[in-house]
Amino acid sequence: MCFSPELLHLYNLKGKAVVAVDILRATSTMVTAFANGATQIFPVMELEECKAYASHNCLTAAEREGVKAEGFDLGNSPFSYTPEVVNGKAVAITTTNGTRAIRLSEQADEVIVGAFLNLEAVVQYLKKLGLDVLVVCAGWKGNFNLEDTLFAGAVVDRLAGSFELENDAALASQHLYLEAKSNLLGFLRRSSHVGRLEHLEIHKDIEFCLQHDVFDVLPVWKQDRLVDVLAQPVV
Amino acid sequence: MCFSPELLHLYNLKGKAVVAVDILRATSTMVTAFANGATQIFPVMELEECKAYASHNCLTAAEREGVKAEGFDLGNSPFSYTPEVVNGKAVAITTTNGTRAIRLSEQADEVIVGAFLNLEAVVQYLKKLGLDVLVVCAGWKGNFNLEDTLFAGAVVDRLAGSFELENDAALASQHLYLEAKSNLLGFLRRSSHVGRLEHLEIHKDIEFCLQHDVFDVLPVWKQDRLVDVLAQPVV
Repeated sequence: MCFSPELLHLYNLKGKAVVAVDILRATSTMVTAFANGATQIFPVMELEECKAYASHNCLTAAEREGVKAEGFDLGNSPFSYTPEVVNGKAVAITTTNGTRAIRLSEQADEVIVGAFLNLEAVVQYLKKLGLDVLVVCAGWKGNFNLEDTLFAGAVVDRLAGSFELENDAALASQHLYLEAKSNLLGFLRRSSHVGRLEHLEIHKDIEFCLQHDVFDVLPVWKQDRLVDVLAQPVV
Repeated sequence: MCFSPELLHLYNLKGKAVVAVDILRATSTMVTAFANGATQIFPVMELEECKAYASHNCLTAAEREGVKAEGFDLGNSPFSYTPEVVNGKAVAITTTNGTRAIRLSEQADEVIVGAFLNLEAVVQYLKKLGLDVLVVCAGWKGNFNLEDTLFAGAVVDRLAGSFELENDAALASQHLYLEAKSNLLGFLRRSSHVGRLEHLEIHKDIEFCLQHDVFDVLPVWKQDRLVDVLAQPVV
């Protein structure tokens, strides 16, 4: 359990499976995109790099400061990634925090994209893998945030019995999740990032991203992109 | 609220009061030393630098990996800092995590040393100061730890009503403290650092360091050292 990409240098990623998470909204959106038929996702760090993918027959998506960046096909709202828009398409995406968490974790043996939306798929995969697990929270510009921590706590909680807890951060996140789970939205309402996003009138997005186990989707990092390893191969 | 010195670069310390905390055991020990009559404390980063203070009529104290370093007068157990040993004396001290949190916070307008032992003194001082407050947890080698977080939560809880919460870390620490406060020791027993220390047979230290409001002591950073600003001046 790592609360921020800024703390990643403290961990040895070799031999580990990383679950990268940015609940509001990057990883929730990626999971939704795969569920709606996206073929692959390229998470990149910079706007210019992202824009360049347009010439490779990719949809391009960019968010900065919580809003869609100008000149891109899509922003960071899961509701924009409908089957009509993404089915059969590749997507290149850059966001303030989420894509950073994924790319900085590349050294790990496996990098999995997690969200409440595909929580059970993530948990089942981790149990099968048998590697040590590190949940890497995207946070907010390097800072701790509550919604990613609650997701980490949910992973810890569902893995309890199969895994041992290595650090206090895992323990703390589990405590917080157990306290919050009966009303995640109410619990998060006092949090800074949710306040910031509610201000942007994306309350609907937040409710959507807090739903558990909606999609049987598992985005895993392969070389230079994310693919859904549970997707049926196209015949 | 900052979970680790590794995240301090994300904060602007100007105009802020920092409360540096390392419950197990550096800041608890410093508070105890002042309560038992130490005149000033020099927190330093390196063993050699600490040793050099011996020639300045200082007691020297050093801890590495949870145990007293060789060649120093004292380790990091509050029980070693009895009135017989420290009364009227200056102490130079270096520890794995705690002295680092203090020294890295020097840019702040005020740096206060906090522990459960002097919690109320810290809270009263913060209310009088009226500056924005940042609790800097020493953590364990850069990682989040639970006992420092619970202290931060206690500060947040006692300041509620007088201050607004700026970030999710403050909110999370308050939740954890409220859950844990009726049985701090039981709550911490599953934590990694407490496990590490119990292994070192310092259970007595841990119980001691979790007591609230025992000492009316307030170590504050002045130029190059800590002094107890509540101490009666010597006539």
